[in-house]
Amino acid sequence: MTVKIFDTPEVQDFINTVAGLDQAGGNGRAKQIVHRLVGDLFKLIDDFDVTEEEYWAAVNLLNALGSQTQFGLLSPGLGFDHFLDMRHDAIDAEAQRTGGTPRTIEGPLYVAGAPEAEGFARMADETTEGETMWLTGQVRDVDGTPIAGAKVEIWHANDKGGYSFFDPSQSEYNLRRTIYTDSDGRYTAHSVIPSGYGVPEGAPTDVVLKSLGRHGERPAHIHYFVSAPGHQHLTTQINLAGDPYTFDDFAFATREELVIPAERIDDPAEIAQRDLSGPFSQVVFDVELTQVSAPELQARHARPRAKEDEQDLASQLAGTAKV
Amino acid sequence: MTVKIFDTPEVQDFINTVAGLDQAGGNGRAKQIVHRLVGDLFKLIDDFDVTEEEYWAAVNLLNALGSQTQFGLLSPGLGFDHFLDMRHDAIDAEAQRTGGTPRTIEGPLYVAGAPEAEGFARMADETTEGETMWLTGQVRDVDGTPIAGAKVEIWHANDKGGYSFFDPSQSEYNLRRTIYTDSDGRYTAHSVIPSGYGVPEGAPTDVVLKSLGRHGERPAHIHYFVSAPGHQHLTTQINLAGDPYTFDDFAFATREELVIPAERIDDPAEIAQRDLSGPFSQVVFDVELTQVSAPELQARHARPRAKEDEQDLASQLAGTAKV
Repeated sequence: MTVKIFDTPEVQDFINTVAGLDQAGGNGRAKQIVHRLVGDLFKLIDDFDVTEEEYWAAVNLLNALGSQTQFGLLSPGLGFDHFLDMRHDAIDAEAQRTGGTPRTIEGPLYVAGAPEAEGFARMADETTEGETMWLTGQVRDVDGTPIAGAKVEIWHANDKGGYSFFDPSQSEYNLRRTIYTDSDGRYTAHSVIPSGYGVPEGAPTDVVLKSLGRHGERPAHIHYFVSAPGHQHLTTQINLAGDPYTFDDFAFATREELVIPAERIDDPAEIAQRDLSGPFSQVVFDVELTQVSAPELQARHARPRAKEDEQDLASQLAGTAKV
Repeated sequence: MTVKIFDTPEVQDFINTVAGLDQAGGNGRAKQIVHRLVGDLFKLIDDFDVTEEEYWAAVNLLNALGSQTQFGLLSPGLGFDHFLDMRHDAIDAEAQRTGGTPRTIEGPLYVAGAPEAEGFARMADETTEGETMWLTGQVRDVDGTPIAGAKVEIWHANDKGGYSFFDPSQSEYNLRRTIYTDSDGRYTAHSVIPSGYGVPEGAPTDVVLKSLGRHGERPAHIHYFVSAPGHQHLTTQINLAGDPYTFDDFAFATREELVIPAERIDDPAEIAQRDLSGPFSQVVFDVELTQVSAPELQARHARPRAKEDEQDLASQLAGTAKV
């Protein structure tokens, strides 16, 4: 087909009407963004001669994604989370906030309100199987000064790739802890080595990725929020070295500086020193935070997170009116 | 913020990776469309300095829309259905398929498999309240020749704006019928005058429309599929004249030629002629179909519709792999 109508005055006027540009009420920024978004999509339909069949299959797919709450899973798969990180990196660079441990994506599986501990925490309940992980590190300024009392929030999957809260077979807050660093800026967690995992086979997100010739696998990884007064809040995660997907993460979270080995230790002295019962794998992840004064840089950004907000859907959605 | 990263080689390469352009498998058209779509959205984020808060509120809104199966409701509200019609009109014009009753949007509330009748049908069950509607018309060629045996599928809301199947208080297929025209090309339905209705208050679609300063109301209307061998399939609907929203339909389905009056008739002779028990409202809608030979123009396009397909979600989604 050679018919292209996007640039006609009729279509351009229609997009203005759709976006409410002729209406007094509403939110100016929402109107501008919807005007741009609808225009981009109309032009895409026009340029690609998208058929009715293709269009309605896409609408159906969007309904399926939402009905399974998978937009937060598709989002990193289509690179949006990493793209937002790239923008933050560029903004930091322009503001000369350099150095420090790199950020990477949060993912959709954080749950607020995990148990808190000082310096050391056991993260796994007694029924949790898997290789013992001794996860430790120091939180420092970019000039090397240890930061005591830094808040280190850690969450990771079990050895089957499941997260407590989302995986009902696990106890509440299993493998989720908040640890405040000790006087030397150190934190230590006794946990189990997590497994990587994939997007569920046949789920809408999987359908999208397969249509692109891509897989939906993530390497074994461990999530972190790290914060301390006067320092920029850090959202990051480490990918364990040696996983087949360490450098082929469908969510594009991998960064060279965040690939960390798990070192197997079976020296009885090392085992005894940690009061463990046998060989274990040690993961050492030191974190450096950049100094900032602006309060909004010291807290994580707002985002709907499990158990973070008591607000109901209606008020969450009311918040989206500004989009 | 002045940071713009979209045009950097890093971002452009990343979009190629996201779209699977470096992968052997998948579907070429899906890759091209996703490449364009993700690029457009990244550029929108960059140009508007979309914040994390705004981005994640939008993701949350998409999940809410899908969880309530509202993408098929938001779609006409954002003009996509009408835009597809505008493209079809332009394609028809280019192919010189002119004349005939105008098409307009289908909407998401068709249900396949309604009872069939020859010439005349009662559409309302005995419990259906409201003003009696005598809905009739003739199906003709564009040259005026009546078309006998044309298939006229009609569906509309009750006097509270509810559709059977989606409104569980109504009986199966209430106000849904398939009528084949008689030897003179005529169809007649004995039904009730429908009411207009609005997007549910507070629903995700309503949130979007309100953010644009727009309402979510539709005028009273009646949906049609009309088809006959050798003629182009017609998807259309009529808006009843005099409704406050006749010319302000949130779904942009109104077309001048499709605004039809409901004429109140209380002449006893007219009542007796139709075997009715009292005054009624008559709606006359004649339909003209254009002649075509291509079989694909004689059937409605594929789209997920209630009861039309026995296929399960997985196979529906498999169909979307080509998008």
